[in-house]
Amino acid sequence: MRCNDLIARVVALFPETFVGVCMLPQSPKADMTNSIAELERCVDMGFIGCNLNPDPGGGHFQHPPLTDRYWYPFYEKMVELDVPAMIHVSGSCNPAMHATGGYYLAADTVAFMQLLEGDLFKDFPTLRFIIPHGGGAVPYHWGRYRGLADMLKKPDLSTHLMNNIFFDTCVYHHPGVELLTKVVPTSNVLFGSEMIGAVRGRDPDTGEYFDDTKRYVDACEALSEADRHAIFEGNARRVYPRLDAHLKAKGL
Amino acid sequence: MRCNDLIARVVALFPETFVGVCMLPQSPKADMTNSIAELERCVDMGFIGCNLNPDPGGGHFQHPPLTDRYWYPFYEKMVELDVPAMIHVSGSCNPAMHATGGYYLAADTVAFMQLLEGDLFKDFPTLRFIIPHGGGAVPYHWGRYRGLADMLKKPDLSTHLMNNIFFDTCVYHHPGVELLTKVVPTSNVLFGSEMIGAVRGRDPDTGEYFDDTKRYVDACEALSEADRHAIFEGNARRVYPRLDAHLKAKGL
Repeated sequence: MRCNDLIARVVALFPETFVGVCMLPQSPKADMTNSIAELERCVDMGFIGCNLNPDPGGGHFQHPPLTDRYWYPFYEKMVELDVPAMIHVSGSCNPAMHATGGYYLAADTVAFMQLLEGDLFKDFPTLRFIIPHGGGAVPYHWGRYRGLADMLKKPDLSTHLMNNIFFDTCVYHHPGVELLTKVVPTSNVLFGSEMIGAVRGRDPDTGEYFDDTKRYVDACEALSEADRHAIFEGNARRVYPRLDAHLKAKGL
Repeated sequence: MRCNDLIARVVALFPETFVGVCMLPQSPKADMTNSIAELERCVDMGFIGCNLNPDPGGGHFQHPPLTDRYWYPFYEKMVELDVPAMIHVSGSCNPAMHATGGYYLAADTVAFMQLLEGDLFKDFPTLRFIIPHGGGAVPYHWGRYRGLADMLKKPDLSTHLMNNIFFDTCVYHHPGVELLTKVVPTSNVLFGSEMIGAVRGRDPDTGEYFDDTKRYVDACEALSEADRHAIFEGNARRVYPRLDAHLKAKGL
């Protein structure tokens, strides 16, 4: 709650630059009651989305899968408020699991597979999740997931998941972003970058910051101008309708 | 032990086709004593490598990282026998973690990061690991790992890890294999495929088996003939010296 108040304060100070998404008071033994209340409070303050942690225990994956009924009351509130969630774990309490180098990408990948294995979006057709770090391992293994959907007798990924799941571009080299934009439909890729993020240095080979992801998108020659507009702006306005409304209210 | 005996039996029946690698009697509460004995027994039977499970608990990542002293007696035996290990988890006991779609790729990624964070290959300069499934998420996030090595004040990946870590080609679509072979040095990529593996079906778009990985390597136009020879044969002979000796003894 205090962190979200701080975010609201930053947004109030720099309204031309920022809009808020909230974190949630999740805990290994808690249900989602307090998170629902905090989401409502933050949306009332003008926030446009939230971060949902699929493993609040921090690195041992003890929580039920994202398709479990445990999460449903929260999803109902997300749908009611029309806000998406980024599925992103937090700190690692596991000495075998480095947070930004192991845990994050593992959790992204596991989350996607939980959703593939279930039928969550039949129950919540308008629920929307963003999986960060370019979807973890998923686009690199896109054939594997297409094949697993087939083996598990699920519909094609395009209808089974890709009306509801989106990936960001936080992949810190050009070949990765090129694969992402080649394999995953452009409508499912949202521009993402970091500042004071996981990888803070400059590439010694190029002198550029590893996490300056716009360069990698710019260098994807196969993207049309319409694709670029979708990745940099259009998709975000569609996935975060409250962002779109907020910008339109400013005449943008 | 019974499974390894069965593998030895298959090798004896089809010596022109197969050579053995062994599994190990690992268990969540056991040390590596029995695994060391079984590795010795299998190498005595002509096996050329082993499979090492970094998470014998099956999906909650409770084991110490691969850089921990827990593993050292086993590594000493690997070095003595000059056999590499594939780092590959087994079944998942976690309902939130689908084995082939979530757990495997997560474990591959976490293992690589454990090795990046430590200095294991300073202690064991000739120890060799194969990380399956094309390295999990690692090649897709190669910039992230280069940047993390830099942040953690480790040497460049080329010397810190890539004399000792190798990836297979079990990535089930061409763009993934192309990324792998573009980003990771050719000397670190070993041809791998599956039969009765994770993804058994045919791609409805092409009619081809998802796990027929040779097609994806063949389609990588940037690879020279020397690169292809390295990926299909040369690297395996170098990483598995007992395979090389075995083939040479047959005049191959």
